[in-house]
Amino acid sequence: MARNSLGREIPDVWRGRKLEPYRDPWSKKPEVLRATRPLVRRFPGDSKLLPSLRAALEACELRDGMNISTHHHLRNGDLLLNLLVKELDAMGLKDMGIASSSVHDVHAEIIPYIRKGVITRIETGVNGLIAKMVSRGELRCDIIVRSHGGRARSIVTGEVEIDAAFIAAPCCDETGNMNGVMGRSACGSLGYAHTDARYAKKVVAVTDNLVSFPAAPISISSSDVDYVVQIESLGDPSKIVSTTTRVTRDPAGLLIAKYAAEVIQASGLLKDGFSFQTGAGGTSLAVADNVRKMMAEARVKGSFGCGGITGYFVDMLEEGYFQTLFDVQCFDQRAVESMRVNPGHREISADLYASPFNRGCIANMLDCVILGATEVDVDYNVNVNTESSGWLLHNTGGHCDVAAGAKLAIVVAPSIRGRLPVVRESVTTVTTPGETVDVVVTERGICVADRHEDLKRELLRRNLPVKEIHDFHEEITRVTGKPRALEFEDEIVALVEYRDGTIIDVVRQVRD
Amino acid sequence: MARNSLGREIPDVWRGRKLEPYRDPWSKKPEVLRATRPLVRRFPGDSKLLPSLRAALEACELRDGMNISTHHHLRNGDLLLNLLVKELDAMGLKDMGIASSSVHDVHAEIIPYIRKGVITRIETGVNGLIAKMVSRGELRCDIIVRSHGGRARSIVTGEVEIDAAFIAAPCCDETGNMNGVMGRSACGSLGYAHTDARYAKKVVAVTDNLVSFPAAPISISSSDVDYVVQIESLGDPSKIVSTTTRVTRDPAGLLIAKYAAEVIQASGLLKDGFSFQTGAGGTSLAVADNVRKMMAEARVKGSFGCGGITGYFVDMLEEGYFQTLFDVQCFDQRAVESMRVNPGHREISADLYASPFNRGCIANMLDCVILGATEVDVDYNVNVNTESSGWLLHNTGGHCDVAAGAKLAIVVAPSIRGRLPVVRESVTTVTTPGETVDVVVTERGICVADRHEDLKRELLRRNLPVKEIHDFHEEITRVTGKPRALEFEDEIVALVEYRDGTIIDVVRQVRD
Repeated sequence: MARNSLGREIPDVWRGRKLEPYRDPWSKKPEVLRATRPLVRRFPGDSKLLPSLRAALEACELRDGMNISTHHHLRNGDLLLNLLVKELDAMGLKDMGIASSSVHDVHAEIIPYIRKGVITRIETGVNGLIAKMVSRGELRCDIIVRSHGGRARSIVTGEVEIDAAFIAAPCCDETGNMNGVMGRSACGSLGYAHTDARYAKKVVAVTDNLVSFPAAPISISSSDVDYVVQIESLGDPSKIVSTTTRVTRDPAGLLIAKYAAEVIQASGLLKDGFSFQTGAGGTSLAVADNVRKMMAEARVKGSFGCGGITGYFVDMLEEGYFQTLFDVQCFDQRAVESMRVNPGHREISADLYASPFNRGCIANMLDCVILGATEVDVDYNVNVNTESSGWLLHNTGGHCDVAAGAKLAIVVAPSIRGRLPVVRESVTTVTTPGETVDVVVTERGICVADRHEDLKRELLRRNLPVKEIHDFHEEITRVTGKPRALEFEDEIVALVEYRDGTIIDVVRQVRD
Repeated sequence: MARNSLGREIPDVWRGRKLEPYRDPWSKKPEVLRATRPLVRRFPGDSKLLPSLRAALEACELRDGMNISTHHHLRNGDLLLNLLVKELDAMGLKDMGIASSSVHDVHAEIIPYIRKGVITRIETGVNGLIAKMVSRGELRCDIIVRSHGGRARSIVTGEVEIDAAFIAAPCCDETGNMNGVMGRSACGSLGYAHTDARYAKKVVAVTDNLVSFPAAPISISSSDVDYVVQIESLGDPSKIVSTTTRVTRDPAGLLIAKYAAEVIQASGLLKDGFSFQTGAGGTSLAVADNVRKMMAEARVKGSFGCGGITGYFVDMLEEGYFQTLFDVQCFDQRAVESMRVNPGHREISADLYASPFNRGCIANMLDCVILGATEVDVDYNVNVNTESSGWLLHNTGGHCDVAAGAKLAIVVAPSIRGRLPVVRESVTTVTTPGETVDVVVTERGICVADRHEDLKRELLRRNLPVKEIHDFHEEITRVTGKPRALEFEDEIVALVEYRDGTIIDVVRQVRD
């Protein structure tokens, strides 16, 4: 057991894996070669089409202990992972790992197969029930929470080997050329799956929309695909993408958005070439709305928007506020439609988006990102993985990746949520280290990390409610009272891996 | 010394390399993992810009014996390779290899550096003077002739290691995102360079058109680029692409084209989903012209055209004869322009186009290809590398790749060229094995390989001049006289590698 640089206790070994404690966001360098895989020769006339998922699983020659992956572009509408796990069980396989890009509530269907020992590892963060049950000691399944960039890194370095990737393809031809922008299961970008396609030992395209060769456009190429399987349905379209994402109407949210926009203006970054990322939450979109107005006023021509893309960013592209959108994931129908028709709206892989070991890492080019938080502490560390219950409930997404990459990482959150203060003495779980978080904006005040003295001064000059984070913590705690300390067992049920592969925190079983 | 299956003598070892003799087009399977390279971490604010080629060569830490590469999309207008070789000399480096995608006449400037021992190997076919001098024993430089698909294979398998790739980028941003469709050195597709970008240990983008981030469109991504260098000029635009490619007006050429088109029609391949490749020669374009008319008449909707793309194929795309063009190389200005604006005109890598070890190999999807020849023999073996002089003068291009991939590979050639018969008892050099050549069309007759009895019958039924190739050989030889046998020294000056890495032939020094 060692303490990492943030004071979190990290065991030397966890469930057979040797752990390296987190040090800082920058010093870890790649020491390995890019992962590889066997080459394959196919001949003219060879067909990749297989009649069923079972046939594809058999063709991939899976054995006990191997890893499969899917992507989460279909979100809570995904049917594929559940179908696959049932087949793994029917084949009598045990001790399999799920190395998908994320796991959602819809995948609670696999719980019986975790109990049976078919699935024993989830090599990614989990949203929802499975994680909650693991947190409570009701289910044993190793969970390693990884950010989007960290997941790509773990695959590219070979730390996680995907023996067979099953890529849900809303549009696919018989050679495996595919895209996500057409068909009834259209989800837009297939950015998370790009890394799987490139590095998995075997790659299976699974589609409910088999089109004649060549599929157009081509997002993932037949170069990377071994087999193609047609199934009845990839998912429930109503749960794949939201039809629209909206700016908040909540007064506190609007005030937070106003402050955040003023921070951006005060930072001096809002000039030609400005690049920006927000999430799809109502407050984030309200910040984008304010930023758009400021860009219009100052006639700023931005460079790019990136990350998960909403219709809001599509408007900004079409109106010329951005030259390009780099889209790793479409959040709504308008984003899907835009990616289909607008060449300025570009699909990127999670690797290019956010991996610290990618030569092009787009996150490193970002000026400003707006991030959420379930908790922030007085050292600016942010938690998005566990809730106030201590339960692991959320995946990291790109949170720690863009915080590290962007010049200005702004966390927006209501000061009080569910009667609990957002700023804590210490976060329950560190997702994103304070070294990479620059400003915390709430409706009651703005906290600026000490390394940004100039920004702090400028905000004060603008009469904005700048507060020292310790003072602010006390101020809110006076309102909410000191939250009751959570109690945990010794058992570590999940790791939180930082994007560079070191362990920034662990999740312990909650004491009921 | 062993004889390969075509009866060519192949030494066991040549200049230190152990050789594997060619057996057949199909049986060689990849036995290695995909090549890899070190991962790199870059930080926010890191710049890839370097002030000069020299600075980039130094940053790549080149040492004696290493390989550099360039692409040949700028053809005879390329300035980059010459500049690089001069710098290698200035740096005192020796025994360097050129692993470019092709070498042209313009690169005769490097001859003094071959004499000095700066360059000792060319890991690709050579068009022009250097090859001629090597053939005549006037210059010693190992030459390994590789097809486009074979070159990609040799890089992907790691047989050829590129220590530093210098990619001429007609449009590039500071992070190395680049395309070939914009700027004064626009050449269209960067298909040959894709493989270098993906596998070279270090990748340098060299541009005469540095644009603001992000370059649009992105053909090769910043993911793969280490350094960016801006130079005055990449090349002579007038020699980069021809302004236009034209259908022949020669009556013999037109007759050949008529026959070839009738062969295609007789083959039964000309139906919906038809795919087609021709070169840029006047006769090939005349075949395309006839095919277009037949497609119009029969209302055939084709699938794709591929290979090196001409304005002629662009017309066919725009008029709906093809749904897609897969473009590894633009032959004229109209193709460059089309690739810039038409999403159906798609850039592909040489690896995807033609490598036998690529899961998607487009060549394998081809119905019909029209190919040229300097010689064909009575076993249908084709030579495009050496001339009647015995001199090595031409690179292979995709010749043997698409011959192997396509259902119907038709060689078109005048029966007599420079008073010599095109059909020989035995070709001087085997580029493409007869097992993969289906039909030879000349203005005096059509020869069909024995394995296509049905096609032969159908052509006879159509009253086309079908001739047995032995008879046809005698018929032409009666006109031309038997060509004087070439005399060679024992010294092997070049290898001709088949696309799978086995040695299909060698080139010996010509006895003067």
